[in-house]
Amino acid sequence: MYSFKNDYSEGAHPRILKALMKTNFEQEAGYGEDRYSQQAVELLKNRLGRNDVDIHLLSGGTQTNLTAISSFLKPHEAAIAAETGHIFTHETGAIEATGHKVVAMKTADGKLTPAHIQQILDGHPDEHMVKPKLVYISESTEIGSVYHKRELEELSVFCKEHDLLLYMDGARLGSALCADGSDLRLEEIPDLVDAFYIGGTKNGALLGEALVICNDVLKADFRYLMKQRGALLAKGRLIGIQFVELFRDNLFFELAMQANQKAALLREGISEAGFEFLTDSPTNQIFPIFPNALIAELEKKYAFLVWEKVDGGHSAIRLVTSWAAKEDMVRAFIADVKTNRVPGKA
Amino acid sequence: MYSFKNDYSEGAHPRILKALMKTNFEQEAGYGEDRYSQQAVELLKNRLGRNDVDIHLLSGGTQTNLTAISSFLKPHEAAIAAETGHIFTHETGAIEATGHKVVAMKTADGKLTPAHIQQILDGHPDEHMVKPKLVYISESTEIGSVYHKRELEELSVFCKEHDLLLYMDGARLGSALCADGSDLRLEEIPDLVDAFYIGGTKNGALLGEALVICNDVLKADFRYLMKQRGALLAKGRLIGIQFVELFRDNLFFELAMQANQKAALLREGISEAGFEFLTDSPTNQIFPIFPNALIAELEKKYAFLVWEKVDGGHSAIRLVTSWAAKEDMVRAFIADVKTNRVPGKA
Amino acid sequence: MYSFKNDYSEGAHPRILKALMKTNFEQEAGYGEDRYSQQAVELLKNRLGRNDVDIHLLSGGTQTNLTAISSFLKPHEAAIAAETGHIFTHETGAIEATGHKVVAMKTADGKLTPAHIQQILDGHPDEHMVKPKLVYISESTEIGSVYHKRELEELSVFCKEHDLLLYMDGARLGSALCADGSDLRLEEIPDLVDAFYIGGTKNGALLGEALVICNDVLKADFRYLMKQRGALLAKGRLIGIQFVELFRDNLFFELAMQANQKAALLREGISEAGFEFLTDSPTNQIFPIFPNALIAELEKKYAFLVWEKVDGGHSAIRLVTSWAAKEDMVRAFIADVKTNRVPGKA
Amino acid sequence: MYSFKNDYSEGAHPRILKALMKTNFEQEAGYGEDRYSQQAVELLKNRLGRNDVDIHLLSGGTQTNLTAISSFLKPHEAAIAAETGHIFTHETGAIEATGHKVVAMKTADGKLTPAHIQQILDGHPDEHMVKPKLVYISESTEIGSVYHKRELEELSVFCKEHDLLLYMDGARLGSALCADGSDLRLEEIPDLVDAFYIGGTKNGALLGEALVICNDVLKADFRYLMKQRGALLAKGRLIGIQFVELFRDNLFFELAMQANQKAALLREGISEAGFEFLTDSPTNQIFPIFPNALIAELEKKYAFLVWEKVDGGHSAIRLVTSWAAKEDMVRAFIADVKTNRVPGKA
Repeated sequence: MYSFKNDYSEGAHPRILKALMKTNFEQEAGYGEDRYSQQAVELLKNRLGRNDVDIHLLSGGTQTNLTAISSFLKPHEAAIAAETGHIFTHETGAIEATGHKVVAMKTADGKLTPAHIQQILDGHPDEHMVKPKLVYISESTEIGSVYHKRELEELSVFCKEHDLLLYMDGARLGSALCADGSDLRLEEIPDLVDAFYIGGTKNGALLGEALVICNDVLKADFRYLMKQRGALLAKGRLIGIQFVELFRDNLFFELAMQANQKAALLREGISEAGFEFLTDSPTNQIFPIFPNALIAELEKKYAFLVWEKVDGGHSAIRLVTSWAAKEDMVRAFIADVKTNRVPGKA
Repeated sequence: MYSFKNDYSEGAHPRILKALMKTNFEQEAGYGEDRYSQQAVELLKNRLGRNDVDIHLLSGGTQTNLTAISSFLKPHEAAIAAETGHIFTHETGAIEATGHKVVAMKTADGKLTPAHIQQILDGHPDEHMVKPKLVYISESTEIGSVYHKRELEELSVFCKEHDLLLYMDGARLGSALCADGSDLRLEEIPDLVDAFYIGGTKNGALLGEALVICNDVLKADFRYLMKQRGALLAKGRLIGIQFVELFRDNLFFELAMQANQKAALLREGISEAGFEFLTDSPTNQIFPIFPNALIAELEKKYAFLVWEKVDGGHSAIRLVTSWAAKEDMVRAFIADVKTNRVPGKA
Repeated sequence: MYSFKNDYSEGAHPRILKALMKTNFEQEAGYGEDRYSQQAVELLKNRLGRNDVDIHLLSGGTQTNLTAISSFLKPHEAAIAAETGHIFTHETGAIEATGHKVVAMKTADGKLTPAHIQQILDGHPDEHMVKPKLVYISESTEIGSVYHKRELEELSVFCKEHDLLLYMDGARLGSALCADGSDLRLEEIPDLVDAFYIGGTKNGALLGEALVICNDVLKADFRYLMKQRGALLAKGRLIGIQFVELFRDNLFFELAMQANQKAALLREGISEAGFEFLTDSPTNQIFPIFPNALIAELEKKYAFLVWEKVDGGHSAIRLVTSWAAKEDMVRAFIADVKTNRVPGKA
Repeated sequence: MYSFKNDYSEGAHPRILKALMKTNFEQEAGYGEDRYSQQAVELLKNRLGRNDVDIHLLSGGTQTNLTAISSFLKPHEAAIAAETGHIFTHETGAIEATGHKVVAMKTADGKLTPAHIQQILDGHPDEHMVKPKLVYISESTEIGSVYHKRELEELSVFCKEHDLLLYMDGARLGSALCADGSDLRLEEIPDLVDAFYIGGTKNGALLGEALVICNDVLKADFRYLMKQRGALLAKGRLIGIQFVELFRDNLFFELAMQANQKAALLREGISEAGFEFLTDSPTNQIFPIFPNALIAELEKKYAFLVWEKVDGGHSAIRLVTSWAAKEDMVRAFIADVKTNRVPGKA
């Protein structure tokens, strides 16, 4: 059974394991104060062209989101998210567990616009409601779409005008930046958002996300928050070494590109076979709509998520590719789609 | 500069890295539902001789403590700890951040007794105070001492009689179990406590603690709590593989023994040189009392923590050894102690 | 300017003030352990015909909701509410501030049905999402509607079958019970819900809500929670005396009936004048739809809330009556509606 | 049985009840936006001689402490208190329930000094511990002592120098200000602390505390916090009217003086009878040390708290007087002490 279920089915890129091997017996300081974590931070700052940001290395997406958001907000302040936003749907109330409401808005494509946010602000006029303060977006989104540079700029301007913080969940930022048609570059992000994170777990690392705090007001004492939330690893070197490996050259981007290419192959093959998609995704998650009988057939050989029912006879499935996805399995999947489709009916 | 600062200065035991290498391209389920995590749980259950416990793999000690304790307690219930207890002093209020007070008690040796707990219960008679509900102990303690089996049995009986939960922080459980004079065996612990964890990070792993929930009442829905607190790794295999390696034979115990042996060497050498210790520790943390001048001399070549002032001219330092501590550096340290002591004066 | 803005514009029913006067110099125990609070609890138990419930007196609705719900839920458990539910919209994230998500569902009339709840359960299958555990309903609802007995019975059965708690916010329970067409009696509620509160503040008291905990599992240690959330008044007698006065005879119901009668008068007059209503409310909150010009006219003499825009030219307003609402002002309002409507156009 | 158990055994000063009567049928805005609450705030600002402070009216001490402190602190920041401090001992972990640790320090007399605080700062050097940020003091303290002006000035300077907030719990501020030998005046407090509250509940009101926020940085959005914590009363007028009555002339101070005078009578009589006191208290709480036999005798006629054992045969009791304490009962108590003491032995 080959899995397209997610982009964390395999371990790490081999270079990362090699680096762990090589450095294993060096004595390093604990809790992220080791030389590798420091080097990773330096490499990231250089890549961003910004020496004035603060960068912290955490273990996973939920941990990063809850630690950052609970650090940035006062008790009565809320986060705004798309209804598909990861913090709203898939983090077991992690943000609420730190005391903050997440106010969600239905969107067509997983992306928030100034109009969405304005509507939420209008509905929260006084102290009898929470005060929306932080706008949470994901790049790429949970349904594969990407914010283009201009959309981000508009959000950024709107947030500044309305004294809102803009926070970007970059669990799949690599895939977004390397997506076909994406016009956003990594080094442009710090000017647009107050904080964001660069996801390692889903792009080559065993675990690890690099949180970048751009807004000076949010920087103070962040390591206290990390420790308090259980996010400071004794052997912080583990994440440091991985980010050094991902960013000492272009490995991070190459891996994202590989993931996207496999997804593109799938997309083209499925499209060629005559099927539509639930969303227009240029990233490493795609959502083809298949007849249920075809899905049943595919499930015999492949693991994937059935995302949602489209109508009585069709459903959308989610296919995710990582850098480690095998091209031959991608081609086999397409062949099986073509073989099993009912002629004349998609 | 050689470091005796802690037992997490190096990476992992080489066998662990090898196992990560070997399994790297296998596709596994996410979030701890992979085959290695399941195998680790089975190995641990076998080792404990208990099939009825629940076992969960988490990343670090603070994370494990806060996730478990906040899962076990209702909002008005508090934890009891020694004043030296890790949750009271060194976790940045992680337990309080989940809403629970930690009530602390001064102890001579870092160990709680029924008498200590009774005193706290006496001081909390009604709803105007928190309700003490969980007794937090560390094995070994933060100052190197160990609970002997009889002491644990007394605590266990007392807690059951008073409807208290007994929770054991086992960040250094390996060292405690393998300590000279320790009469406690791993498989005896589930009968004595409601929950405890077996520390991997400080005993051979890159990261990882295995939480064992023994009390049925505490088991329900624990994975929800893990997800909510950011403790469910996407690539949960990372911890699973490590615990398989530590427990598929006796590696876990062998590493603990190696750590203790280095500490014992240090203890004997320092003792021979005529110095006393702050606490009587048979584990991998020892606290010799040195003249400040000697400390200054040692600091030129070794990294360690100055633990506390003893009098105007003397302080206690903390020396920690891990399985990876080098014997020649241990001997060099002892030699330096002997060379630099002022003759006739300790 | 006469106000129909809410049902807490005036003080207390005069009998309550008289009772405060009369008992003023008696020495009573603090924190709700006084004789009047105990007598109030007894009177309420008698009225409910249930000696096995626990009853606690708190100050206000938000305080009661947050104290109860945070006591009843574990950290990963969530409340389900209608999108109009008070805890979802008008309590500044009070429930989230105690760590719990409120999952909301769009409804036509402010009332939840088993179908709504089933839909939410279907969307929360595993530990990556919160676990819905408590169903929050308001009787009467925030838009004036009432649950009929049969609807409550269906909810109750559904909740028991799905291991969900059913909690009723009774801020305006008096008005609901005394509504035209309501077939629910106070003494039937404890069989149907796990906990509910009987609102005093909006029905004759200066402040005070009586929380009734029916489910044995939820009873333990509730006074600890009250103290911890700041809900235990030093002079608890203040609420006790008021509930004694409201329930030593039928005052509570008489006041609710008076409030409803004034609302009925308004409803009939407005209906007669040819206007429709946003919701079909038999309680003390009504929502007539008026042309904006008429609203502007009425705002010169009356205070009320403009609830929502209906179309370009019309809006719904909220009119609330309490026991203290003056009948002559009600009639004046109707007359002004009739005078100012544009002939031939509603 | 006459009670000296506390200063909230009786209702309110009669003038307050009269004012509630008189204003009862006036329609007022809800949630503290009524004219009486506004008038109370104005009266208090005038009395303080400070138009630039923010003043909010809340129901009780625990509620005020938890709402204020959780508003002022970030998640990793802690409060410092004396071990006798109300938030440390008698609020059921209310502060911890909002996520913040309270770090406590043993004191001789319930009062914190710069030296105490420095010691706590020294023990919290980095992100592995909470960051002490707010110093909580009570005036008068929980054991009856008062801070003199100079002591407060020293604390104030120290806190400013160390970037700490100074917060004063004034549950019994009236008694402290009117104590024999006190050189502090109400209007001097805003210059010395960042926030404090003026207690009404224990000095003439049915309920009510006036929180004064002096530090501009702490003012924003406080009403959001009040609503979120359940501290915004629908009929906020209830507290407003009471503070108007207490501060439209000198009633607040007169009542405090009456309370102190009764305590002074007790103190002198008990002293005359040859007994010592646990603490030197010039306020309305005193702690005489009696032989246990005498205590047993007194308990037949009077209610009071046995505070702590002093030695095998003696204990300290707590006697509290309010403005409503009856002088004849005070004299009766003294007479009973004198009658029942064992001649020649105190």
